[in-house]
Amino acid sequence: MNYPGGLKKNFKLNKNYGNRGMNLEADLNETNTYYLDNDIAIIYKKPTPITINKVDYKSRNDAVIKEAHFKIPSTTDYNGIYKAKYIDFEAKETKSLTSFPLSNIHKHQIEHLKLIYKHGGIGFIIVKFTRLNNTYLLFINDLLDFINNNDRKSIPLSYFNKKGFIIKEGISPRLDYLKIIDEKEFKYEKES
Amino acid sequence: MNYPGGLKKNFKLNKNYGNRGMNLEADLNETNTYYLDNDIAIIYKKPTPITINKVDYKSRNDAVIKEAHFKIPSTTDYNGIYKAKYIDFEAKETKSLTSFPLSNIHKHQIEHLKLIYKHGGIGFIIVKFTRLNNTYLLFINDLLDFINNNDRKSIPLSYFNKKGFIIKEGISPRLDYLKIIDEKEFKYEKES
Repeated sequence: MNYPGGLKKNFKLNKNYGNRGMNLEADLNETNTYYLDNDIAIIYKKPTPITINKVDYKSRNDAVIKEAHFKIPSTTDYNGIYKAKYIDFEAKETKSLTSFPLSNIHKHQIEHLKLIYKHGGIGFIIVKFTRLNNTYLLFINDLLDFINNNDRKSIPLSYFNKKGFIIKEGISPRLDYLKIIDEKEFKYEKES
Repeated sequence: MNYPGGLKKNFKLNKNYGNRGMNLEADLNETNTYYLDNDIAIIYKKPTPITINKVDYKSRNDAVIKEAHFKIPSTTDYNGIYKAKYIDFEAKETKSLTSFPLSNIHKHQIEHLKLIYKHGGIGFIIVKFTRLNNTYLLFINDLLDFINNNDRKSIPLSYFNKKGFIIKEGISPRLDYLKIIDEKEFKYEKES
């Protein structure tokens, strides 16, 4: 089935949460909780955007939504702050062994990341090739480079190997993607 | 009625949107759209957080949520980027003529803003005294100063007049709150 913005994943989340062999979203949530608990960064996944049509007010403290619809998200799923920098990204899984279909990301999400970059923030996508068990971080400027120079509707794995950064899987945090931000964005600070 | 995080406001939104004499949330949404359209800042309101229990898959493209519950928000309602700085705030209305009840803001939202400030972001609350038609911006450090030095469960209007900044109402944008950020955060840049 085909929900806006890959919503299907969200329903799996509750079942998988806390287990090993988790999906990307659960791994990122665990990682963000680790960053928060260790005072490293404050990064959250945004709630799923919905339009509410009907609400039942059972009691003073218990309102039940009886009808609502999914909305196409205006922005990416994750944002926050790290070392005083604004962080913004979208995360997607693919079962493909060879390429990541661009149709997995909404056009306005790419436009959003482009704007974030222009305004001095750090924007990227995280893509997990689930059957390879490889997770990549690709910065927005490299994503845009690909889109602007190719007619292809999917990004080949080779491009991720060339321009992306592998996020190594660990115990805690599960996916330390900020390590890549450190290496790429803050390396001059570290060297000086 | 008493919903977590002042959710009641959200239901009014659709009706009032686009009208004058709008509520604070509609004014802020209009202002954020203005900032976005004019390439000034990228600031969004986060979707209302919910837990989804039942979904009907009517057709390939139309999923209807049949049962969901409101969750207490973990963070504030608004965040984004302005002049490469991370911006984060919560917005609340009060009908009181004399003070703003602190019970209107969740404790963990205040903790969240405190963390944002610590990590180099700009955190604040926007409070509209609807019957006075006055809207204030109060920075998190001033909010914390009040909480740490008072046993009162509400912030008197006089404190907003002393420590807060009035957001002047305009045509477009309706509530130019970034003007205050300019004056307070970026004044040294402007002066130099």
